[in-house]
Amino acid sequence: MRVEIVAVGTELLLGQIPDTNSQWLGEQLAANGIASHFHQHVGDNHDRIVLAFRTALARSDALIVCGGLGPTQDDITRAAIAEVMNVPLERDGEIVEVIRAMFVARGRAMPENNLLQADVPHGATVIAQTRGTAPGLVCALGQKVVYAVPGVPYEMTDMFERAILPDLLERQRSTGETSVITSRVLRTWGASESALAEAVADRFDALADDGRVTIAFLASGIEGIKVRLTARGDDAPHASALLYEEEALVRRLVNDRLGDIIFGVDHETMEDAIASRLVARGTTLAVAESVTGGLIASRLVGVAGASAWFVGGLVSYASEVKFDLLGVARGPVVSASAAEQMATGVRALLKSDIGLSVTGVAGPLEQDGQPAGTVFVGLSMAERTEHVALRLPGDRPRVRSYSAISALDVLRRALDRHVAATPVISK
Amino acid sequence: MRVEIVAVGTELLLGQIPDTNSQWLGEQLAANGIASHFHQHVGDNHDRIVLAFRTALARSDALIVCGGLGPTQDDITRAAIAEVMNVPLERDGEIVEVIRAMFVARGRAMPENNLLQADVPHGATVIAQTRGTAPGLVCALGQKVVYAVPGVPYEMTDMFERAILPDLLERQRSTGETSVITSRVLRTWGASESALAEAVADRFDALADDGRVTIAFLASGIEGIKVRLTARGDDAPHASALLYEEEALVRRLVNDRLGDIIFGVDHETMEDAIASRLVARGTTLAVAESVTGGLIASRLVGVAGASAWFVGGLVSYASEVKFDLLGVARGPVVSASAAEQMATGVRALLKSDIGLSVTGVAGPLEQDGQPAGTVFVGLSMAERTEHVALRLPGDRPRVRSYSAISALDVLRRALDRHVAATPVISK
Repeated sequence: MRVEIVAVGTELLLGQIPDTNSQWLGEQLAANGIASHFHQHVGDNHDRIVLAFRTALARSDALIVCGGLGPTQDDITRAAIAEVMNVPLERDGEIVEVIRAMFVARGRAMPENNLLQADVPHGATVIAQTRGTAPGLVCALGQKVVYAVPGVPYEMTDMFERAILPDLLERQRSTGETSVITSRVLRTWGASESALAEAVADRFDALADDGRVTIAFLASGIEGIKVRLTARGDDAPHASALLYEEEALVRRLVNDRLGDIIFGVDHETMEDAIASRLVARGTTLAVAESVTGGLIASRLVGVAGASAWFVGGLVSYASEVKFDLLGVARGPVVSASAAEQMATGVRALLKSDIGLSVTGVAGPLEQDGQPAGTVFVGLSMAERTEHVALRLPGDRPRVRSYSAISALDVLRRALDRHVAATPVISK
Repeated sequence: MRVEIVAVGTELLLGQIPDTNSQWLGEQLAANGIASHFHQHVGDNHDRIVLAFRTALARSDALIVCGGLGPTQDDITRAAIAEVMNVPLERDGEIVEVIRAMFVARGRAMPENNLLQADVPHGATVIAQTRGTAPGLVCALGQKVVYAVPGVPYEMTDMFERAILPDLLERQRSTGETSVITSRVLRTWGASESALAEAVADRFDALADDGRVTIAFLASGIEGIKVRLTARGDDAPHASALLYEEEALVRRLVNDRLGDIIFGVDHETMEDAIASRLVARGTTLAVAESVTGGLIASRLVGVAGASAWFVGGLVSYASEVKFDLLGVARGPVVSASAAEQMATGVRALLKSDIGLSVTGVAGPLEQDGQPAGTVFVGLSMAERTEHVALRLPGDRPRVRSYSAISALDVLRRALDRHVAATPVISK
């Protein structure tokens, strides 16, 4: 099975938006052991879309088309697929009803052109839409297949996981490719990609000869470095056993050489790691943010069930707010003592068990004589008040994002350090 | 002249890095009026690179190849070009000397494999390297041409601007094509893609016959719908005049049928729109957030210079915080009156001219008898206190993101409504 991805949209050719879909799909296909040798971008032009599809079908077994399924005049993927399949487009009554119902539910009038989305090439099957109005398509052409999904990432990823991946895996199995691939991602914060590579270099070399297990490093920007372990076995239990064994080895190497930098696995975020620790402790948290300006609170609120442990936060952007509401001593506000006072102050103001704070300089200009990238994290717990000083790289958005995840990591490590030594705090 | 971009590298297919090169090159080509109809990604495999090049040459006049020019075993672009050109590779003595001199200058021993970078297909000309060790190539094939540049963006952009763009423009002139393309993006919030398409349908149809100006719609998820206008003229002033005229027509149509939904142009964000209005008014803002949990504050702090008008915010996630610090009356906190009290409360607490608030249900569960997606925005200004009730679609992260931009849009519209009628507020 060789899968080619074709992203449709003139905006991609003009460079107006990045093609994150092909990257995401590439990652998913690789993680599932499905080969992908080519990607294409093509604009909103019927003849050229048809040419791109035919080119892809000549050199690949399956085709995932992203984009061009919307309700407007430049959404012409459906018609191009129909031409390649040599069939007419037919309006699907069920889809029409679903789209009408969506507009009724939102209390809005439906522009007629929305019904274009109900046009389906004869013989294609439909991937029901759950997050938007455009359905996806599965179009068989002899032994080959064309999948079409909307270009909106949120809708595309849902359809890929729900319908396309299972179908691809089934097709792969039916061709006699029966090995099973399983993978796990270890998520780290606080080490560089090269330091991680050096820490596991022995395993990397040992595995190169084997071929059943692979290690890859994915720099995930503001979310740290991911270490992806992939194992191929004759069946699922075999692949899982290989993966389990390798994970133990890699965790030990990383921990011995770089310390406690693995904060989660797979889709687990830093805030998920915080949430599980706070829930286990029965402890509540409040945050005071300056340079991050609400980023930390926003990440915490993003965890479902946050109300059990997150009280709230103060975005003390103006210095006066720090002085008046948090009891920070007048003077420079980018300092270790200001960070500690902010943490203690927000804990008192919002009546939480723990206070976490960040103050720093996002740039581009320096502040209080401190260069951009200078950040202090403050932490106030029943046991003690402490701070961590950081020097972060990058431009304004980078410094802010790094500050947020760094502060959460300070809290994660502190919770792990103190949990064994101290009694659980009750409100 | 139709230029195709081929990015070489297995890491692109696996989704391990984003392909920023194709996006950047696409933008540059469009800005210079050079057509580009297709992009491809291909991995580090000789036969497949050759196939990708031949496919590109079959449908385009020029080919820009990024990547695969380095010194390691998987850098095989040079050999693939030589095969397509049907010529041998020859080692270039001058390049050998340049590479040797670079290592001497850095006081480092040169690994022998670096000299692979001195191999040039017979008949190709060299683009001298100034930022790295690998030179670029210009390879003529009859009337067509293949340019090859390293995949490192910093080296690629230099070679494109210095050698490839001038050569492409010269070739374009020699074929008699001299037109210039210019484009502008209108950013909207509050209308569906289909409603926008219907609003400008007359222009869309009129332009289809003309061909000099085009309209396209880009759904940008949580940031609204973008309307892209592109004009092609004989020269830059001509293209700009066409674009200016079309923008006025489209703005009038959109405004007449859908109201004041255009909040910015090109890269202008909703928070940029807020910032410029607050700066013009000399007015300060504070926010009280529940469901958005710091998202709004974080967006505002992201604007450089925000300290001039943004005081701070309270993330009043727990109801007690709303009651104790914002003076919200005890009772259900997802309501119009709670939103208004939050806005008034945060304005008093943080001593700002304007208070903006959001309270709502992100889901997945309902709250206070209100279903997920129910959101109230509160706004407290000197002139009056008001609220807007919203019903937003999507899962938890969507509802939160839509709430944030919707609240900012409520403020934007209020600032535009009141600015003419009332005196400027001073602190």
